[in-house]
Amino acid sequence: MRIILCGFGVVGQSFAKLLESRSEDLYARYGLKPRIVCVFDRKGSANDPSGLDTSKLIDVKKKYGSVNRYSGAFDNTSGTQNINNLEAEVLIEATESNYKDAEPGMTHIIDAMKRGMHVISVNKGPLALAFPSLMELADYNRVLFRFSGTVGGGTPILDFAKNSLRGERIVSFDGILNGTTNYILTNMADGMSFDDALDDAKKKGYVEADESLDLDGLDAAAKLVILANWIMGMKVTMPDIKRTGIRNVDSDEIKHATEKNCAIKLIASCNKELIVAPKAIAADDPLCVSGTLNAISFTSEQSGTQTIIGRGAGGIETASSILRDLIDIRNESTKT
Amino acid sequence: MRIILCGFGVVGQSFAKLLESRSEDLYARYGLKPRIVCVFDRKGSANDPSGLDTSKLIDVKKKYGSVNRYSGAFDNTSGTQNINNLEAEVLIEATESNYKDAEPGMTHIIDAMKRGMHVISVNKGPLALAFPSLMELADYNRVLFRFSGTVGGGTPILDFAKNSLRGERIVSFDGILNGTTNYILTNMADGMSFDDALDDAKKKGYVEADESLDLDGLDAAAKLVILANWIMGMKVTMPDIKRTGIRNVDSDEIKHATEKNCAIKLIASCNKELIVAPKAIAADDPLCVSGTLNAISFTSEQSGTQTIIGRGAGGIETASSILRDLIDIRNESTKT
Repeated sequence: MRIILCGFGVVGQSFAKLLESRSEDLYARYGLKPRIVCVFDRKGSANDPSGLDTSKLIDVKKKYGSVNRYSGAFDNTSGTQNINNLEAEVLIEATESNYKDAEPGMTHIIDAMKRGMHVISVNKGPLALAFPSLMELADYNRVLFRFSGTVGGGTPILDFAKNSLRGERIVSFDGILNGTTNYILTNMADGMSFDDALDDAKKKGYVEADESLDLDGLDAAAKLVILANWIMGMKVTMPDIKRTGIRNVDSDEIKHATEKNCAIKLIASCNKELIVAPKAIAADDPLCVSGTLNAISFTSEQSGTQTIIGRGAGGIETASSILRDLIDIRNESTKT
Repeated sequence: MRIILCGFGVVGQSFAKLLESRSEDLYARYGLKPRIVCVFDRKGSANDPSGLDTSKLIDVKKKYGSVNRYSGAFDNTSGTQNINNLEAEVLIEATESNYKDAEPGMTHIIDAMKRGMHVISVNKGPLALAFPSLMELADYNRVLFRFSGTVGGGTPILDFAKNSLRGERIVSFDGILNGTTNYILTNMADGMSFDDALDDAKKKGYVEADESLDLDGLDAAAKLVILANWIMGMKVTMPDIKRTGIRNVDSDEIKHATEKNCAIKLIASCNKELIVAPKAIAADDPLCVSGTLNAISFTSEQSGTQTIIGRGAGGIETASSILRDLIDIRNESTKT
């Protein structure tokens, strides 16, 4: 199975390492022999039809800030050039999310699908802006489209709702889908000011380069779009979400909540309307998790409410979700 | 798909109602047309090869305390007679659990498998005492054996661990697997004595007829056996569990725990050893749920710790788990 990997940041590197360390086991247990034939980043590409060397890739990236000197000479082939010329079965899109035009990820995904490649995206941008049409494009081109890592990182939230609850009808859900804002709100509940809590989160490396993605609820909203489409069968995109971030949550509000044995959390909810907004949650509600944890409660017709809690992000967790998608693609594509 | 239903208590009745209410949807979505051709309880049987009438069954059971007068005259055919003579594709075992010899459920399951029927068990007894050999028997007879409802009721814990985490290695887990003891311990933490808390739980109908199943950790241990076999690939049965119940948990111990921001919970854990015992858990650990809730935290190699929380039992929740197993059997058996 030949793979083109778009982006070689924390997630891309973790995934390459994971593939290497699990290679024997993957072949033994799933008959899966993946090899990364191309990696590219903003500045250029690294190619090898027989499979790239992970350690060398990581060394080159560290030394030069790009994979483009992998074979010695500069290789400044662009992502789209690679996608449109190379032979591969799977494209993994792991460039940065943005919610303006979702580029370059959007073009990578569209081009790959048109060329008949299965696509795994951990980039939320294209899904947030165009989930319904990307799904259609995948169907039309008879390729599989997977994105487990976009919601919950290593915690298989999408799979749980879609598969483990089969035979059930999920009627609504509420989630804490952004670990950074949860960390800030948890610290504020412990007495910190918003500014101090934000600074602390920045120091720990929890905040996106564009802090608006966290603070204004864009990241949570993107995940809500994905959940609403995938689990509830809605056909919605970013503009369908009513969104309020945490910038206006003040210490008084948090104090009042604490007095009532509640906590203010940034909740993404799907219950007739799609809303991301700060909300008071009872402290003994399983949904009410602290720190950088993510949590989501699904309410279904027969089985009541079920909550799943886990770490939201992190390179290795997201890498493990890509691997799960890859195994899924391997199983699904050999079926037909 | 013809079904023999063993036992017609709360779960059996909920399942029959659920099948009826979902029949159109089940056919449309899964091509599934289940009909219950035989139900039996301790006192006799009800039969109809073209499918029994649910409302009538429930009326008869209510009126006479047994289904044996369904067709007017007494039908005192025994369970094993039915299983060994009737034609059916699936047996659903929903009689009461016991951990001495697991009868009559054990015989029902064995006889059905030998006759080539797929088996769904919500009865934990046979699994706790003979999981490895029942699995072998199912394999040998090429039938499917499902038991989603035995752990977590409507909460698909087994499925989550087995399927949603595929590609991952679960290295250990800890769970609160018995809602009744959790309810008692929660009330004790709120200041009640053990005896008062037990009385309260009895009044609410949470305690098994044989209270030892809850209080001495037998129910939790049975679930631990099932999890260890199914998820960790161990070949263990009830005697392999080190088991301590909650009878000796005293108010002082609970007070000390509360002072340290912890709570005493009956924890079933799998980490080299298999243990059921009361243990202090940090109040902000996602595992630390209150009331009758169940929770389980799986720690896996790459994805960190993931917790799943839900109501443990209840007729309708368990019925929905049987339905999930039925859909699973339908999908699996049409594959081959």
